[in-house]
Amino acid sequence: MAGNLDITLSNRLRKSPYYEATLRSGAKSFTIYNHMLMPVVYEGSDEDYWNLINNVTLWDVAAERQVEITGNDAYRFVEYITPRDLSSLQIGQGKYALITDENGGVVNDPIILRLGENHFWLSIADNDVLLWTRGLACGLGWDVQIDEPDVSPLAIQGPNSLPLMVDLFGDWVKELKYFFFKETELDGIPLIVQRSGWSKQGGFELYLRDGAQGERLWDMVMEAGKKYDIKPGSPNNIERIESGLFSWGNDMDLNTNALELPLEKFCQLDKSAEYLSRDALHKIRSKGVARKVVGLIIDGKAFDGGCASTWKVSSNNKTCGKVTSAAYSPRLKKNISIATIDKGFNAIGSTVNVDSPWGSRLATVTNIPFN
Amino acid sequence: MAGNLDITLSNRLRKSPYYEATLRSGAKSFTIYNHMLMPVVYEGSDEDYWNLINNVTLWDVAAERQVEITGNDAYRFVEYITPRDLSSLQIGQGKYALITDENGGVVNDPIILRLGENHFWLSIADNDVLLWTRGLACGLGWDVQIDEPDVSPLAIQGPNSLPLMVDLFGDWVKELKYFFFKETELDGIPLIVQRSGWSKQGGFELYLRDGAQGERLWDMVMEAGKKYDIKPGSPNNIERIESGLFSWGNDMDLNTNALELPLEKFCQLDKSAEYLSRDALHKIRSKGVARKVVGLIIDGKAFDGGCASTWKVSSNNKTCGKVTSAAYSPRLKKNISIATIDKGFNAIGSTVNVDSPWGSRLATVTNIPFN
Repeated sequence: MAGNLDITLSNRLRKSPYYEATLRSGAKSFTIYNHMLMPVVYEGSDEDYWNLINNVTLWDVAAERQVEITGNDAYRFVEYITPRDLSSLQIGQGKYALITDENGGVVNDPIILRLGENHFWLSIADNDVLLWTRGLACGLGWDVQIDEPDVSPLAIQGPNSLPLMVDLFGDWVKELKYFFFKETELDGIPLIVQRSGWSKQGGFELYLRDGAQGERLWDMVMEAGKKYDIKPGSPNNIERIESGLFSWGNDMDLNTNALELPLEKFCQLDKSAEYLSRDALHKIRSKGVARKVVGLIIDGKAFDGGCASTWKVSSNNKTCGKVTSAAYSPRLKKNISIATIDKGFNAIGSTVNVDSPWGSRLATVTNIPFN
Repeated sequence: MAGNLDITLSNRLRKSPYYEATLRSGAKSFTIYNHMLMPVVYEGSDEDYWNLINNVTLWDVAAERQVEITGNDAYRFVEYITPRDLSSLQIGQGKYALITDENGGVVNDPIILRLGENHFWLSIADNDVLLWTRGLACGLGWDVQIDEPDVSPLAIQGPNSLPLMVDLFGDWVKELKYFFFKETELDGIPLIVQRSGWSKQGGFELYLRDGAQGERLWDMVMEAGKKYDIKPGSPNNIERIESGLFSWGNDMDLNTNALELPLEKFCQLDKSAEYLSRDALHKIRSKGVARKVVGLIIDGKAFDGGCASTWKVSSNNKTCGKVTSAAYSPRLKKNISIATIDKGFNAIGSTVNVDSPWGSRLATVTNIPFN
């Protein structure tokens, strides 16, 4: 039910600089993300979850590829692709943003890092933002260069990530504010260190800038982490649903418009900079959205796995939505999920039916995050 | 060595309309292609190969997603994205083409189908051509609409595909020329039938236009194929290397320019229509290319698997290229491969060294296809 399959390797399925190290560290199961293998299970989804919640874990997230944007029009271009107001984005700071198309549809939801006045990285979710941005820039004829640099993030996540990072880099990491970053090195390995990561347990990401040093970096962090009982880990489906971290391809796609997500604080529709989706999003705002991405708490026995394909949501036998991510939370002792639900059925507290692989269940619409 | 891993399912890894049917039919191993699960092994790579060579096989290739381009500027746009001259492309005809960017780099290598004067499908390889084309069209401001329609190809490949297709559709399929297609239906299931497919063993593709009928279509073809001892199959790594079918992501990527591939007959650099990569490709043509994609016959014991990651190619201990695909051909009784090799080392008949997972081997540069 959890849903696992055998996958045949090929050169097309890219290997991260940490790939061999993750195999040595006991990676049991993978996903494909941005054409790259990414480990998602070590001891087990639950064991990995508790390691993250209670301690500290090291993640190969090299599959979060970087799209580098430089050139005289780079700042103008980055403003153009998102409804988020980036006018206050400082050099050395990152911001989460929705990349939106001409219809207001969500192309991707990266962290945008500003490395210079006209130098940005998009640290992306699972699709070819490189192609979207290059195509758009080509058509516009603006002065930007867009490439995928040799950059491979490694995440250190969990409550003990801070003392471990202090051991590795020194006291200055304590002062790093959320989403801020610094260019540095570790024993000659060129890095950007950011306070960030795809969990809400606290942590950092090390953006490795030399793929040849991946295994060395992994081993150095593992060695330094021994005193904190560090474990290999990965973006954890249970924790990220609890924390309300949406996943592109699971909880949203190009057909999801930005206003269907409960992410209003990241959309400044009236920002002064020019942006592609302005007209579409203004129209959607006046008209109201036809559906919303919400949380659902689902009754009954603990789920024995995640959402391998969408589950139908209904009310009085009428389809009114779909569950797109789900897990049993061992901490909340509840089945929690993310769902897209139609207008009229998505008010907080509403009750709906969910066709799960473990039978039909009652469910209650709730706010996200769950904790 | 062949390289298999466990993969964790999620909604983000899309399921084809034939997915449940392929599991029922014994799919043992999958790949991810255009964010979708695609079966690649049933009985075994060798057994599947012989079924294809000797008989007839049914393939779930729904992961060959379609990018639909319509609108007043659709023809102009499709010419714009490729160096192939499409002026003679008829309604009801398909052509293989390289999609190229402003540097002449290969974005993708689809079959372009013309359904109407200004109505096209790109039947694509593994990346988000939808994002590339939509971004470009947005930037240009041309009058085109670009979408991913509900279309899921199913391939019938092998020497017995023709009699089976006649049984299913009638004698007219015999008259269908290579890459030509016809809109039709099968017991009410809306289809486009094309003489095409990712093998050189002869065959057809059925472009299913209603995903809800996937399992029914699969079962109908399997039932009709019983008298020909049809087997489930898939794009086969051995056969496609023998036949010189290049794979985007394996044998080429955005950093491969169109002239590095032995596909000159698909590039009309002096075509009259306007196209994006004209200046770049003209420059590369005058200067000459620095490397070429070629065939390699590799000495020694039969390989026990494919190329899970690139293998280094060298000459006198100097790196001069990489192997990107490889297989042992049980028909040619040779190790065959596709490689990218630098100028000075890639002349037909040259000898180079290959670092395979089974040791260092001598290899000879050869023409593609191998048979």
